[in-house]
Amino acid sequence: MSAPGKPGLAVSPLAVPFPTIAPIGGVELATARAGFYKHVRPDVVVMRFREGTSVAGVFTRHGVGSAPVDWCRAALKASGGRARALVVNAGCANSFTGQPGATAVDRVTDALSTELGCPRQQVLMASTGVIGVVLQYGKILNVLQDVLVSLKPDGWAEAAKGIMTTDTFPKGAAAEAKIGDRTVRIVGMCKGSGMIAPDMATMLAFVATDAAIAPGALQAILGPATVRTLNSVTVDGDRSTNDTCLLFATGAAGGPEATDPNADDLAGFRAALEGVLMDLAHQLVRDGEGAQKFVRVEVTGATTEASARKIARTICESPLVKTAIAGEDANWGRIVMAVGRADEPIVREKISIRFGDLVAAKDGAVSPTYDEAKMSAYMKNDELSISVDVGAGSASATMWTCDLTHGYISINGDYRS
Amino acid sequence: MSAPGKPGLAVSPLAVPFPTIAPIGGVELATARAGFYKHVRPDVVVMRFREGTSVAGVFTRHGVGSAPVDWCRAALKASGGRARALVVNAGCANSFTGQPGATAVDRVTDALSTELGCPRQQVLMASTGVIGVVLQYGKILNVLQDVLVSLKPDGWAEAAKGIMTTDTFPKGAAAEAKIGDRTVRIVGMCKGSGMIAPDMATMLAFVATDAAIAPGALQAILGPATVRTLNSVTVDGDRSTNDTCLLFATGAAGGPEATDPNADDLAGFRAALEGVLMDLAHQLVRDGEGAQKFVRVEVTGATTEASARKIARTICESPLVKTAIAGEDANWGRIVMAVGRADEPIVREKISIRFGDLVAAKDGAVSPTYDEAKMSAYMKNDELSISVDVGAGSASATMWTCDLTHGYISINGDYRS
Repeated sequence: MSAPGKPGLAVSPLAVPFPTIAPIGGVELATARAGFYKHVRPDVVVMRFREGTSVAGVFTRHGVGSAPVDWCRAALKASGGRARALVVNAGCANSFTGQPGATAVDRVTDALSTELGCPRQQVLMASTGVIGVVLQYGKILNVLQDVLVSLKPDGWAEAAKGIMTTDTFPKGAAAEAKIGDRTVRIVGMCKGSGMIAPDMATMLAFVATDAAIAPGALQAILGPATVRTLNSVTVDGDRSTNDTCLLFATGAAGGPEATDPNADDLAGFRAALEGVLMDLAHQLVRDGEGAQKFVRVEVTGATTEASARKIARTICESPLVKTAIAGEDANWGRIVMAVGRADEPIVREKISIRFGDLVAAKDGAVSPTYDEAKMSAYMKNDELSISVDVGAGSASATMWTCDLTHGYISINGDYRS
Repeated sequence: MSAPGKPGLAVSPLAVPFPTIAPIGGVELATARAGFYKHVRPDVVVMRFREGTSVAGVFTRHGVGSAPVDWCRAALKASGGRARALVVNAGCANSFTGQPGATAVDRVTDALSTELGCPRQQVLMASTGVIGVVLQYGKILNVLQDVLVSLKPDGWAEAAKGIMTTDTFPKGAAAEAKIGDRTVRIVGMCKGSGMIAPDMATMLAFVATDAAIAPGALQAILGPATVRTLNSVTVDGDRSTNDTCLLFATGAAGGPEATDPNADDLAGFRAALEGVLMDLAHQLVRDGEGAQKFVRVEVTGATTEASARKIARTICESPLVKTAIAGEDANWGRIVMAVGRADEPIVREKISIRFGDLVAAKDGAVSPTYDEAKMSAYMKNDELSISVDVGAGSASATMWTCDLTHGYISINGDYRS
């Protein structure tokens, strides 16, 4: 099976089917081909939101950033967290493009706001693709009116394809929650798949809910929800200039706008949102470039959660650990190596390491029950769980990653040609 | 051509010939096969030094370390920086092996010191190979007497082969310097080649000089000399448990022991030592697992040297940069990405990037003189130079790395089988 985003790419063996996503009140979507790719594929997505929609955003912490990220940050501030539309393009990141890049964003958001009759700061933009190339905004303007005519509530599956770059399958998730007696829905889509690391990666995620939540509360809910989800997955440690997670709350489900992010009756919503983001984050890993294995790394016994996360991240990003996993080799010595180079508090004599339920190391040395044959059999699974206790405290963290294979080299050694 | 260390490995296309290394006064070497490998190859090296030899050491800063590194640290302290012998084995790192690992080191150093009639703390040890396996010290004891009989001054080339693991060529370097009117020599060997990163990597380097330098001065000279050499190369960012650089000064060239590391008449010695270490460090990169390109990354315009080094290291260790180089793709956007994710002070609007003399980016955007054809032609070279100015200050640093290729995946995905 060939991937819809880029011809010739085989679909990840870890792919999951796109879920059924019913329309969500107050959201319409449309896709079009603006022509940022030579081959025929959708590469522009527009989302329109009902009036009064709240928006929250989490962006890359990358030092360079991009023109669309600059714009989103400014627009969220200027609009007080209200949005009427989002335009996304694949094929050009419009990052490191100076004033011409910023002008391109101005032109697109200006045109869209004129068409929709809303303030420009209520039109957001996101871009993904090659860095250093100024966005040819004329390509988007050229298809804009056609796109607006085709807006419809039922377009998530198509839109998820329109934002793909080297992704091999479209990614979506949906959940329901109760706010008081009212049922609300949360749906989202995202794209990965290389340059994925904590702090947002080359990751675009767009989530919408029909819940009524005021902008300040929405932002306060979104930030923490990304920490253990989108910011806990890593493919290659490379962080993108363009990462963007936007959460839109249309309020179409009715009721008064919630203003307290910590309110008890939002507990279900917060959990459901984290569930949707976790689902999307796992799909990013499942589509990690060249990925053959989905790997969960849990670190316990750390002095703080941040320390546990740093150790987990060091394991997840170690090329030697990742290639061992690709080779189905239970080379737990490389886990020890990664633990030790994280420069976090550990007690060597208490370190233990498990692969699934199999104990590889205990109390700072190989386990007396270590069984190479069982371990090798375990490593043949598509989904692996590695648990490390570093013996220094009681804090823990979990991250997810994939293996490092020939596929990664092929995809990235020949990306632009 | 097949590598001497491991059967079936092709010699790196970036390999350089082993230099002619004449015997150095006060040093004898011997190698033997203890049998840590199934195939026939030398895997134990012993070096004997004349009485009164000074020694200095720089070791891994890895949090786990290894039994031989623990021993060396303790022995250097206990002996006041004097050494009579060094024993090295390849094929077993003896790291993360608890008390049995420490006992193995005791047995080997005890036997060797008894044979040589010297205090045990004057016998150092280094090991490299798989982590988590206790050293079968009997294999070394078994060949010890034969090894001692075969000690000879002229054994550097053979010894350099005996310490190899996945290295594809033996690595050596030599230089001369003047201390006053006296000519002294410095010679060294090292092994790499995966798990190479600043803070010593899977790196063993043994350097000897016939200069007369007291232990304290020798240590004060060695530490700084490793910063811009062995600690400025990175292959995969993975740091070893066992890294060891030992510098022995036999004093055989005569003259009083120098005690002031900063003395003017040691300037030539310090420079020559740094030259030997730089030469060895570059050979490590040239033998980076799967390396096809030797890459120099210079960062200028940083606020401090440490900041420049961190940015250079982030570029050198970015999988996306390394795979682009492997694909001979001048994808300078990935350099921008790596610069921005180093989390160091930069001024986006002033960033410039050069490949060799070709300007890719200037003042925060693509260069007006950017020429894709010339850039692509440049990328076909075996040796590449990437220069980045981050526009924030006047500090600079240089690091060296190699590309990330299918070869790395093949070597490390199938290491133990």
